[in-house]
Amino acid sequence: MKIDFLTLFPEMFEGVIHSSILKKAQEKEAVSFQCVNFREYSTNKHSSVDDYPYGGGAGMVLAPQPIFDAVDTLVGQSDTKPRVILMCPQGERFTQRKAEELAKEEHLIFICGHYEGYDERIRENLVTDEISIGDYVLTGGELGSMVVADSVVRLLPGVLGNTTSKIEDSFSTGLLEHPHYTRPAEFRGYKVPDVLLSGNHAHIEEWRKKQSLKRTLERRKDLLESYPLTKQEEKWLAELGKNEKE
Amino acid sequence: MKIDFLTLFPEMFEGVIHSSILKKAQEKEAVSFQCVNFREYSTNKHSSVDDYPYGGGAGMVLAPQPIFDAVDTLVGQSDTKPRVILMCPQGERFTQRKAEELAKEEHLIFICGHYEGYDERIRENLVTDEISIGDYVLTGGELGSMVVADSVVRLLPGVLGNTTSKIEDSFSTGLLEHPHYTRPAEFRGYKVPDVLLSGNHAHIEEWRKKQSLKRTLERRKDLLESYPLTKQEEKWLAELGKNEKE
Repeated sequence: MKIDFLTLFPEMFEGVIHSSILKKAQEKEAVSFQCVNFREYSTNKHSSVDDYPYGGGAGMVLAPQPIFDAVDTLVGQSDTKPRVILMCPQGERFTQRKAEELAKEEHLIFICGHYEGYDERIRENLVTDEISIGDYVLTGGELGSMVVADSVVRLLPGVLGNTTSKIEDSFSTGLLEHPHYTRPAEFRGYKVPDVLLSGNHAHIEEWRKKQSLKRTLERRKDLLESYPLTKQEEKWLAELGKNEKE
Repeated sequence: MKIDFLTLFPEMFEGVIHSSILKKAQEKEAVSFQCVNFREYSTNKHSSVDDYPYGGGAGMVLAPQPIFDAVDTLVGQSDTKPRVILMCPQGERFTQRKAEELAKEEHLIFICGHYEGYDERIRENLVTDEISIGDYVLTGGELGSMVVADSVVRLLPGVLGNTTSKIEDSFSTGLLEHPHYTRPAEFRGYKVPDVLLSGNHAHIEEWRKKQSLKRTLERRKDLLESYPLTKQEEKWLAELGKNEKE
């Protein structure tokens, strides 16, 4: 997979794309990253990329020319049809399902605005996807694009060493994860639940599944609506709901 | 405000905290950042920070000792009671309201895990908040903590130059933003709406408000439920709904 970040702040990406999984994914040639400063595509004599909004108002608006020309160049170099993704608060909310969808692509181009708005013509005529990572305001699209890239790249074949841990993650099973414990069995007086020290794997599995259901019920009831419960899980959940009311 | 990031990958933060608004916010002394590698607090002879999960299973679990000791040290150095924030998929979903709440604090400590789970005792006995930035799986908590920090720091007094543009942002008004346009009035055959070139400010305001309602209706109907509509806005919305059905 090839990932291009169009940004006025390419230096923001350095630490993130050269650490941890994203670094390893590049070493394994599962992905290559490129940061492109779209200011370099400005045909304006001052290399400006933004301008005042038509109709007045506070703040500046990113002009169409530098971004259209930068995307055209990248698309022209591509053998495939890239997804052109605009990071913006008005976009589709990013989910694990969207990460899985994007992980099937060969080329992603992220457009990262900063401070202010995009000229609407970019949205209407250039991009294939508009993505928001959540209901909060960020300084720019850079962090959002790194979040999306991280969640996509870790799904590419061969990137994560241990495939099981990928499968067991929250949002992949549809429930929140059960609690984890490691040594020591007692730390500052806080103990690990006995069942986990019992060596009885059937009991451990049951405890974990119940804890996972309990946590989802307490924190994210909405996830249960789309989770296909087994008969046994339905029974456990009914018991949990009963205890909750008491 | 003081912000500490507890992480095994401090180099991930460099580009982000030394660019753009976060850089300016430090220059203005509105915030100071510190990245602390909690591996340095491990009392283990191999400086290890994780261990196998009790009860078996894939992946490793972050042990309590290094993280408890690192947080204790940072809390001990603080004049105030810091918020200790665990970045994790099971956490409360981050919103603009939460950003506004955290912006009132003097000291935030972020705990960023990586790859795998946290020992449950960290969650139960050390942290004040658990935050998730969205329903997707990331390699670690680092990007999430940068997202939260960015959204909080831009709210601190004096950080953003233009206070109006902060107020008009999506999620601050409760509606999605209206479209923006800048020069040229025609680009590759795509034109700016006539009303924005008219100079009639009353018409421009009305067009913008309607566009904002239209976009929210089309993309994020859920936001309208908690938005206090004026009589005029209710009328416009009814008209928009009618057009949609035709």
